[in-house]
Order: sequence, then C-alpha cells, then structure tokens
Amino acid sequence: MARLHGVFPYLVSPLRDDGSVHTKVLSRLCDHLIDAGVHGLAPLGSTGEFAYLSHEARAVVVETTIAAVAGRVPVIAGVASTATVDAVSQAKRYERMGADAILAVLEAYFPVSEAQIVAYFTEIADAVGIPLVIYTNPSFQRADLTLAVIERLSEHPRIAYLKDASTNTGRLLSIMQLCGDRLGVFAASSHIPASVMLIGGLGWMAGPACLAPRQSVELYEHCRAGRWQEAMTAQRRLWRLNEAFARFNLAACVKAGLAIQGFDVGAPVRPQSPLSSEQYRELELVLHGLS
Amino acid sequence: MARLHGVFPYLVSPLRDDGSVHTKVLSRLCDHLIDAGVHGLAPLGSTGEFAYLSHEARAVVVETTIAAVAGRVPVIAGVASTATVDAVSQAKRYERMGADAILAVLEAYFPVSEAQIVAYFTEIADAVGIPLVIYTNPSFQRADLTLAVIERLSEHPRIAYLKDASTNTGRLLSIMQLCGDRLGVFAASSHIPASVMLIGGLGWMAGPACLAPRQSVELYEHCRAGRWQEAMTAQRRLWRLNEAFARFNLAACVKAGLAIQGFDVGAPVRPQSPLSSEQYRELELVLHGLS
Amino acid sequence: MARLHGVFPYLVSPLRDDGSVHTKVLSRLCDHLIDAGVHGLAPLGSTGEFAYLSHEARAVVVETTIAAVAGRVPVIAGVASTATVDAVSQAKRYERMGADAILAVLEAYFPVSEAQIVAYFTEIADAVGIPLVIYTNPSFQRADLTLAVIERLSEHPRIAYLKDASTNTGRLLSIMQLCGDRLGVFAASSHIPASVMLIGGLGWMAGPACLAPRQSVELYEHCRAGRWQEAMTAQRRLWRLNEAFARFNLAACVKAGLAIQGFDVGAPVRPQSPLSSEQYRELELVLHGLS
Amino acid sequence: MARLHGVFPYLVSPLRDDGSVHTKVLSRLCDHLIDAGVHGLAPLGSTGEFAYLSHEARAVVVETTIAAVAGRVPVIAGVASTATVDAVSQAKRYERMGADAILAVLEAYFPVSEAQIVAYFTEIADAVGIPLVIYTNPSFQRADLTLAVIERLSEHPRIAYLKDASTNTGRLLSIMQLCGDRLGVFAASSHIPASVMLIGGLGWMAGPACLAPRQSVELYEHCRAGRWQEAMTAQRRLWRLNEAFARFNLAACVKAGLAIQGFDVGAPVRPQSPLSSEQYRELELVLHGLS
Repeated sequence: MARLHGVFPYLVSPLRDDGSVHTKVLSRLCDHLIDAGVHGLAPLGSTGEFAYLSHEARAVVVETTIAAVAGRVPVIAGVASTATVDAVSQAKRYERMGADAILAVLEAYFPVSEAQIVAYFTEIADAVGIPLVIYTNPSFQRADLTLAVIERLSEHPRIAYLKDASTNTGRLLSIMQLCGDRLGVFAASSHIPASVMLIGGLGWMAGPACLAPRQSVELYEHCRAGRWQEAMTAQRRLWRLNEAFARFNLAACVKAGLAIQGFDVGAPVRPQSPLSSEQYRELELVLHGLS
Repeated sequence: MARLHGVFPYLVSPLRDDGSVHTKVLSRLCDHLIDAGVHGLAPLGSTGEFAYLSHEARAVVVETTIAAVAGRVPVIAGVASTATVDAVSQAKRYERMGADAILAVLEAYFPVSEAQIVAYFTEIADAVGIPLVIYTNPSFQRADLTLAVIERLSEHPRIAYLKDASTNTGRLLSIMQLCGDRLGVFAASSHIPASVMLIGGLGWMAGPACLAPRQSVELYEHCRAGRWQEAMTAQRRLWRLNEAFARFNLAACVKAGLAIQGFDVGAPVRPQSPLSSEQYRELELVLHGLS
Repeated sequence: MARLHGVFPYLVSPLRDDGSVHTKVLSRLCDHLIDAGVHGLAPLGSTGEFAYLSHEARAVVVETTIAAVAGRVPVIAGVASTATVDAVSQAKRYERMGADAILAVLEAYFPVSEAQIVAYFTEIADAVGIPLVIYTNPSFQRADLTLAVIERLSEHPRIAYLKDASTNTGRLLSIMQLCGDRLGVFAASSHIPASVMLIGGLGWMAGPACLAPRQSVELYEHCRAGRWQEAMTAQRRLWRLNEAFARFNLAACVKAGLAIQGFDVGAPVRPQSPLSSEQYRELELVLHGLS
Repeated sequence: MARLHGVFPYLVSPLRDDGSVHTKVLSRLCDHLIDAGVHGLAPLGSTGEFAYLSHEARAVVVETTIAAVAGRVPVIAGVASTATVDAVSQAKRYERMGADAILAVLEAYFPVSEAQIVAYFTEIADAVGIPLVIYTNPSFQRADLTLAVIERLSEHPRIAYLKDASTNTGRLLSIMQLCGDRLGVFAASSHIPASVMLIGGLGWMAGPACLAPRQSVELYEHCRAGRWQEAMTAQRRLWRLNEAFARFNLAACVKAGLAIQGFDVGAPVRPQSPLSSEQYRELELVLHGLS
C-alpha cells in the first residue's frame, strides 16, 4: 500500500431509533464522500461514537464501510478499548474484514504508566499485518501519549502514523523532528490543517471533512502545491466549521450537518442529545457559508 | 429491605490467565467476608474492574456473587456505561438475577450536560424496582455529579444512596444538608470513614474492606456506638491501608492483598500490571500492621 | 509560648476608598473578636487580601493588629512572596513588630521544584526566632506542598504548624501520621472543623470565624471536651457559612458580613467586586440562621 | 507610530547577587539585539521575571531599556498586577518614561469574572495614551482571556494587539477571524512562528529571540516574503530552542544562554535556580546547532 495521505473524513455511525446500524445510509455516505474526492475513510473514530457502541454494532459499521468502499480508497478502522486482549481481538477482526489500516485508541479508567501504554499499542501492532495509526486525544481519553512514548512506538515497523487531537500544533513539529519519516503525522479537527501541512503533515483525519469533503480536498490540493495564499483563503472559510465542531458535541454536530445534506443518520446515542434548534440553525449558517 | 448501612467491601473480579472469571475463588471470598461480619457486598465497583470486563464476564461476576451470598447480606451490583440503553439493560439483568440494589455509574467520552446526567440515572431508576446507589468518582470518571444534580436525583423514589469517591469530606456534609433523609451517604476509600460517620454517613463502600473486613466492621461498631476515641485508634491503624490503596492501582493492590491472604484472584486485566515486588512488600508490611 | 490551638479568625484588611488601611476599624474588629473568645488572630491570610496589597499596606495591617491585640492572644502574621529574599524581609519585619508566629505562603509564577519549595520555607524559618505555620492552598496558589515536602519541612525546629486549605481531609490524617507531634495541624474553611478535630487537629484558621467568632469557639469547646453530638449540632449550623464562603469571593464575603455586623471595612481591592445585592441577601440569611 | 510587527525579544532582567539590576549589561544586551535587526524590545515579560521583582527594580529595568534603545525601535513595557489601581500606576509611570506600548498582564489570586477582567484591562487602556498589547498565558497566570473577552476588549481604541502564550494555534485563527484588523496578533514561544505568520500573525514576542535574534529576523523575513520552504528550513532549526525553553525554567534558560554568549546577566531570582550543569550543556548544544 502507498503511504496514506490526504483527507480522511471520520464517518458517523448512522443509527435507527432502535439502536441498529442504518447500513444503507452508511453505504450512501461512503459513495458520496468518495465521489467528492476524499483520500480514504475512517469508521469508528470519536465522531463515529465508538465509545457508545456495542462490539457487534462496531463490527457492522466497519463491515458495511469496507463493502461500500470496495477498494476505491483505503479504510482505516477504529479500535478502542481499556483492555489489551479486547483491542487485539477487535483489530484482528477488522483486518480479516479487509481494513487497510487500524486507528488504535487506548481508553483508560485507572491511570496507566508509560510502559503500559507502550505494551498496549505494541501488542496490537504485533497481532496484525496492516499499519497502525496511533491516536491521542487529551480531551476525551484519559491516557495521553508523551513524546517519549510516541518516539518509542514509532520504532515498531507497523506503527506508521499518528493522529493527534491535541490543540498544540508545536507538539506536532516536535514529533516530526523526533520521529522523522518513521511516523507520518495527520492533524485532527483541533489543528488548522493548513498549518499542519506547512510543517510537514500528511493530511488530516477529521469529522468536519464529512460535511465539507470537496472543500477539504481543495484545501489539501492547494497545500500540496504550495499555493499558500489560496490555501489560507480556503482555510479561513472552512475554519468556521471546525469551530462549530469544537463548540458542539462532535457526533451531534456531524449527524445534524449530514441530516441537513440529506443523509438520514439519526441521533447520537443517548444520553448524548441532538443539537438544539438554535445550534442547528447556527450550523446551517456555517454550512451555507461554505458553498 | 431495611436501609443499607455498614461496611460494603468492593469485590475484586478474580480472573484466570485466559480471562475467564474464577467463580470458585469469588464464592470463597464472599463466604470469607460475610463470616468476618460485613454488612453487604458490592461486585463490579472500580476495584472490581468493571471498566475492563466484557458484559458477559460482568454478568458471571454478579451471578456468582448472588449465588454465593444466598441472601445472607445485600448485594449491590455495579452498572456502568456511556450509553443509557446499555445501562438500563445491565440493571434489569442484574435485578432479574436477584441483586438487592444497583450501584450506577455514568462513564463519559464526550462531555455531558447536567440534563443528560440526570436523564441517564433517572432512566435506570425508572427501569428497575430496587434502590439505586449513585456513584461519583471525579478521579476516574469523566462526568462529575454537582450538588444540584445530586439534589435533583435524590427526589426519585428509587435513588436512595450516594457513594462519593471525591476526597472532599465537606462536600458530603453539604450533600447531607441538601438532601436530608432522602439520600443516604456512603464514603469511598478516599474519605476517612470515622469522619464520614461523625457527620452522619451510613457506612462505607470500599476496596480496602476486602482486605480488612473484621477491622472495618470493628471501626464501624465503634462509630455507631459513639466510641470516638476507640474509633480513632482503629481508624489510624486502618488508614495506612487506604493510603496504599490510593498510591497503587486499586485492582492490583486488592488483588495482591488477597493473594497474600490466600485467595487465588489472579492479576488485573492488561495493560494494567500487578504490583511490583517492591510494592508487594510494602503492602505486606501494611497488612501485617493491621493484625 | 504555649502551643497554638483553637480558633484563629483570618482578619480582613479594612480599606478606605483611596486604598489606605482603615486602622480604627481594624482595631475595633480585633477587640470584638477577642471579646468573643477567639484564641488568636491572623492578619494577611487569603481573606486579608495579601495578594492585592502593597508591602506598606501589609505592614500597616500587621502593626495595627499587634497594637490592638496588645498581647491578649497570639498574632500570626502572613508572609507571601514569589521571591525568597522578599519573604525573609517581610518575616523579619513582622517579627520585629512583635508577631508571635508567621504564616508562610509561597506564591509561584513559574513552576517550582520540591527542592525550591523546601529552600524557600527553610530560609524564612532560619531567619526568624518565632514559629512558622506553613500554608498550602491548591486553589489559589500555584505551588502545592506534597507530603514528602511537608515531612521534610516539619523537621525544622521552627516549622511547627500547618494550615491546609485543600478540601482533602484524609490528607490531613496522613500528614498527622507522617509528622506526629512535630507538626500541629490546623484546618482551613474548606474542611469540616469537627472532622479535623476528631482526627487530632489543633483548631482552625479561617475567614468565616471572623463572622461567627462566638459560635466557632463554642464548637471548638465541644470538640475539645469530646461532646461530639453537640459539636455536630453546632457544626451543621456553622457549615452554611463555610458554604457561602466557598461560593463567593472570600474577601467580598467576609467584608460584606462584617458590614452587616456594623464594621465599616470597605470593598475588596479592584478588580475584585463586592457581593451582588442578591449574594448580599443570601449572606444575610445565612448569618441570621447562625444566631 | 506605525503598526507594531516583527520580532520582539523578551528581555531578561540582569541582576547582581545583591538583587540590584545590572543596568550596564542590560544596555549592552539592547544594543546587541538591535544590531541583530530585531523590530522592538519587550522588557518585563515572563522571561523578564516581572513576577519576582519589586516595583522599583521593574522601573529601573524599563528606564534602562528605554535609555539604551534611544528611539531606534519601539519598547513595549510589561505591566502586571492583581490590583487595578496598581496596574494603572505602573502603566502611567512607564508611559512617562517613554515606553511606546504597554504589555498588560492580569495576575489573579482569587478567581475573576469576565466582567472583572474586562474592567481591569479597560481601566489601564483608559489611563494611557499609548497602545496596549494584552497578554494571556494560561500556564502561568490564573486568569485566562476567553474569545468573548478578547473580542470585547478589541473594541477599545488603544487595545490594539494580543500576545497569546497558549499552545493552541487554532485559537489564534479564531481570534483573527473574530476581531479582524482591530487586533494584531503576536505569537509567543509556545506557537510555531511560521505557522502563526501563515495564518496572518504580525510576528512574535518571545524569550528565545533573545538568544537567536539574527536567525529569528531571518525567519520573519522569509515568512513576510512568502518564501515558505526557506521559512520552514529556518523554523525547524530554531524550534529546538523553543523546545529547550519550554522544558526548562524560562528565565533560567535565557539567562544561561546569554551567559554562554558573553552577557553577565546573573541567576534567576530565588527560589528559582539556574540551569543544572546537565541542562546547561544541553542548551549549549542547542545554541551551537543554530549557527
């Protein structure tokens, strides 16, 4: 597989009122995003509500995505657990289904030591034959990855990418200087994509790209070509969407945005709630401003 | 059922190397603790590693405990989820198994609003016919219960108790003054049990009581009888165990202590690790000092 | 000097509109509190707004207090700085004025190491011939004192007391077990005084005692005599005042309460603001409920 | 005055062992930095240890800087206090001395409301006739400036610039979009200068520029000219210095670096301590790598 790069929208997990996965809507969403030019798809990220779904529902989401994509772009399936053995079993299951890479998340209840964090990710990477994206989100997960841990993990032949959802862009430059080509860096929605591209990022994996795939790809192309002025014009317009995304519940925001765009993705899993009508109108304005 | 009160050890979940629940060890532990005089048992608290076990393993733990206890003391089964529907289903399942009460925990990934917290606990309480203990642990869970939320929840006829694992003892007095008899308050291991009894607590639900059940009951009896000097003598001795418990990983600490006492409870779920040999020796000294 | 013990109200610093210290009001307040039976007075604590006053205003507050007290009870003068040399100079100045003890606070801007914290307090203690109370308030100061630091400091012959303004009452028991008789422990308003007395505290140093000196002394007497039931009756009534104190700005709350009681202490230093009229009425109700 | 822009090194405050300001060294440092091409100088930032100096020492630092600079570049003097009246008096004093702008910092002990924050900065801006740079550093100060507060402050005719020392680069883009031309944005050392220039920043105000003035100006020129590839080459080299700066105590780091470069600036104010010999060697390597 060529090196991953570009725009990877985090897919929402469309759910019916009874909690079952709405596979047809998910398939249609995959088609729509690929048609818009995205470089890959990422089911079961934060936006995909992995933390709220049963193992069976998660498997349906990954399976449906892989079937819908049918090899047109790479699929990076999210694996998240507090327990090593459970994470390994998820990862192997998604690999068998045909995932191109694993996005690996460590959830924690009790505090974890650096050695335990390294052990968790290493055991997943040892168990599969596809690359891993390690994912750190200090806002939502209880275990953060220090630079020392990231450097050590980057030495594993299958730990090839990092997605960082801190807001600290300088940290990304430090990681790049520390790990060099061993670790490709993707931005999350909390970073300015153009800034991360400037310092050497490979692209971004983010929920807002679900709602603005075409504009995201356009921004990516400007950055790749070094057209920084055009990039910043596109970036300024898109940033309003990232701001809304940060202000609202992630899943609620992207699900509402997709509903506005005609995708019947349902509500976020309770006790999460959908956007209020005021938030909904605010998001409509933001989306309107993008086109 | 009479009002819950007294010492409720949080049970560990004994596991074999292959991850299966060691039900015989768990049954023997229940007998041992009841023989020592404890007033009830609490499977699937933090110490019971609920956050690391599959739904099936959790059910085995609750079922085994209820069978072993056989009505001798009340059993409070732990329910924890990020998702309301899942929590309700756990609670109903444990009720059908014969649990006397539910310890209800809200895990969160995305931030939750007060209204969402209230909705989660209310929906569980609406679904069952047994009392709820609401449990808040600001160190390990991402959703804390404010006084306003606790007051509102205490108005539900089945939300009858609170277990607070903050370290803020004054907060407990404020809760007692706010909710009065509607809400019975239990301490966690982070509070000094004698202090909480002084201000009007009903007892404590805590992991260390697994390792010192007889001494914990003795302390409780002193407090109930108003023998505060004797209580403090007992309390000072016991406090060293709470200190060790706070310093180490909870499950690792209680599992090591039970191994020292002859219970083959296995290691905590990976990537958690057992106590180091130095920590093990430190715990041996603490336990030795208790007898 | 006998060992410090009992109730030490934190004095507000009465200020005129032009910022000058209203020494007459301060003297009258000292008389009032001593008449009510308090065991000592503490100018320049948090409540005394040390963090907002010039060095000259601070000196006037200490000097006025010592003159007004005229040896009737001990005076503990607050010393606070980011810089060691400055703190030493404040402490020596207050000792020359006749202070009986120093309450020592370390303010920090950049993070400080444990060695630097130890050096700061040790250098103050080395410079004076009177005892030190070390004061730690994790809510307002940026340098917290760990148990290891406290244990080490307690070995200094003149570091004889601790005032802890965390909310963690268990931490106080751990400190008492660690330091024994070398370090007397006082509660701050964030702890329940009766709880701290139960576990072996010497008393409390707190802003609310400025507003309820007689009731505070009564509570102290109950605790000292082991009348825990009466103590808790008194404590429950008093606790509402601590709750108000925690909810409002400390200086604004005590200054408003003293104004209600007839002391013209002025407003807190800007940009702090006085209580709103709604807060003021709430405080009036709390004070009314005390008598 | 033309709009401020470019590289503004934060000056250290050179001190003799007796605590007095070493004015000759400070003057020589100013000459050195201006010769290297910096666009302005900023005495009494965090790096200048404002939080550790008496008001008199602060005034000597500002006066010395203004005299040494003699109008060659703008001087932005730091004002910091917990108390509004004190801050206003500092600002007016520095304006009379000839400062070109004021860097205004709010220190806090008790929590402050948004209205109080707005009042503090507005009162300073009302009192002077020169522009204000508002400065927010969530790591070291207890009062952070929200976007709503910044937007409101930006409407004051003399609040013209912001220096942000968060690590959140996306926040800067949001501020730029919110305030437009009313508020010029400067980066602190925690941001990647090239990233901030890309999104529309005016330059940076930072301690590391004291140690690498020439290279910083070079980086600035590349950014201004849109030579982003050259900028990133320069940026990658310089970033190691920002990393050291973040890892060590700021004042200790820049003072050690200046000592290496031949400036006798003395040690940081105690209880801060100089770099350890190991840290010193690490910094030597970083500085060596710059040239």
